[in-house]
Amino acid sequence: MYIEKNQQIHLSRRPEGMPVADDFELVSMPVADISEGEVLVKNTWMSVDPYMRGRMIDRESYVPPFAVGAVLEGGAIGEVVESNNPAFAVGQKVAHMSGWREYFITTGEDLQALPDSPIPEQAFLGVLGMPGMTAFTGLLKIGELKEGDSVFVSAASGAVGAIVCQIAKLKGCHVVGSVGSDAKADYLKNELGVDAVINYKTTQDLTADLAAACPNGIDVYFENVGGAHLEAALNVMNDHGRIAVCGMIDQYNATTPVPGPANLAQIIIKKLKIQGFIVFEHWDEYPAFVQQMGQWIQEGKVSYRETVYEGIESSPEAFMGLFTGKNTGKMLVKLA
Amino acid sequence: MYIEKNQQIHLSRRPEGMPVADDFELVSMPVADISEGEVLVKNTWMSVDPYMRGRMIDRESYVPPFAVGAVLEGGAIGEVVESNNPAFAVGQKVAHMSGWREYFITTGEDLQALPDSPIPEQAFLGVLGMPGMTAFTGLLKIGELKEGDSVFVSAASGAVGAIVCQIAKLKGCHVVGSVGSDAKADYLKNELGVDAVINYKTTQDLTADLAAACPNGIDVYFENVGGAHLEAALNVMNDHGRIAVCGMIDQYNATTPVPGPANLAQIIIKKLKIQGFIVFEHWDEYPAFVQQMGQWIQEGKVSYRETVYEGIESSPEAFMGLFTGKNTGKMLVKLA
Repeated sequence: MYIEKNQQIHLSRRPEGMPVADDFELVSMPVADISEGEVLVKNTWMSVDPYMRGRMIDRESYVPPFAVGAVLEGGAIGEVVESNNPAFAVGQKVAHMSGWREYFITTGEDLQALPDSPIPEQAFLGVLGMPGMTAFTGLLKIGELKEGDSVFVSAASGAVGAIVCQIAKLKGCHVVGSVGSDAKADYLKNELGVDAVINYKTTQDLTADLAAACPNGIDVYFENVGGAHLEAALNVMNDHGRIAVCGMIDQYNATTPVPGPANLAQIIIKKLKIQGFIVFEHWDEYPAFVQQMGQWIQEGKVSYRETVYEGIESSPEAFMGLFTGKNTGKMLVKLA
Repeated sequence: MYIEKNQQIHLSRRPEGMPVADDFELVSMPVADISEGEVLVKNTWMSVDPYMRGRMIDRESYVPPFAVGAVLEGGAIGEVVESNNPAFAVGQKVAHMSGWREYFITTGEDLQALPDSPIPEQAFLGVLGMPGMTAFTGLLKIGELKEGDSVFVSAASGAVGAIVCQIAKLKGCHVVGSVGSDAKADYLKNELGVDAVINYKTTQDLTADLAAACPNGIDVYFENVGGAHLEAALNVMNDHGRIAVCGMIDQYNATTPVPGPANLAQIIIKKLKIQGFIVFEHWDEYPAFVQQMGQWIQEGKVSYRETVYEGIESSPEAFMGLFTGKNTGKMLVKLA
């Protein structure tokens, strides 16, 4: 099936600071016919995630940087629309890392067939995918969560944070989240049952508000933000507290070095463990996670929200919106 | 035995920034006769340690702050000179926390009898005491040292650092230390067999020098200093590296908040574990440590140096000298 117009998003140049529209380019190029063993996938949903900002920088990291002038990459869901590979029937839904484009051809090694599930397919980019697995791994394994712990979650209404909050509540924890708007605060309190929420944009004193919200201190801090959030958390942590470092979105768009907190000596005084992690290193536990999370969702114990942009051309805007708080829950782009 | 003149050091006021002589007061007061069940201890050696600076601040920490106008406390070695307690014979050498004074009376619960040992008694304040146990615990347990690891040690010629270096060499590691003088660098290289030493006072670029000294990166950083040392270590750490946070002496005398490193996102990128610890929480392992370390010393596998001040009146100067690099190895005060 020759596709004349396959739209895709290229990185036109490396962003300086906050990404802007001109850092991206919408390009259209044809897709050839498939050869023996290949399949043609039409993408239905694609993910934009904060970690992608790091890949736009030309530096060594846990994933190689994106190339300028080439199509971007990222998690996506698609459907097999043509197949010369017996492993993939036409109509099969698949998850993969070839987002930011409408169609692509592959031999299939990079495709994960989605299981039959009553849960909508795009959930495999969020609550049942990388962000959900990140929440699960970071909180339970890296954060060593114990029943009844006091838990602080930054960026708590995001794709990861909102799942962290709910898992912690399921484990009988006192849960406090930070968000950047009152609407997000309402969502956490009224829909997710979070015990207290701090709007970091309006607080006069993050440490004081956090201490008030955590009368028994903090046992586990799920770190998505860095900077002032980390400083406040260090001030309120309990002895032997754990900080699972998932992200530091505060710093992703910094153009000059941003000094860290001045209170790192709390690490000694409180005997803290601070640990960074990358969820892909724990991917052998993904099947067990999907089983558990799928069950929680179907039992109504975990819910999730999506913020959806429409059309491949809106994907740069969706991505940029991650850094200005445009999303509640998972930020997604629905492709035509 | 009535002692008319028992000299002791009081904290006369809380230091601001670097401690000065006027923060301390030499006080003499008599010691009464001992009662039934009590012993009189005459101190022979006392320890000054960087952590004591933290106890001079009026704040919550893992040990309560020192009181202004009262005698200071700290590790010391003494000899029982009079006894109404059958558990302690006259002449028994004991370790305890009632330093900064020449004599004291106790019922004995706070005394640890020193084992018979060919190793001089004051070693139980250093290589065989809290600093040695700190090195052993931090490197092996918190730092999860593995044979052949690449290890960076800051304040590497100090009471803790010099032992960390030697244990790491015994475990077949590549060991790099930082020190503040060329004489200390020579000591590490020529006497302790450390692979490379950086003089942090003369380096033009700590990260570059550290990277050059650690061609295979850093697997374990034993953190005694904080600040620029932590920043450089984060830059050179390997994936899954461990940072055992023992101290941050750079900050103990700060009068205004000192911002932390700007590169904390390395924690995520490299999936690092940073863990603070207090050796007293691991004290159940002290007997096993003494056995192992005593054996290493007697086999000539671990050596140690001492910097000795004479007389109780010199103890404030010895303590202040910890923050200006006056000691190589353990800083001690020999009492009359």
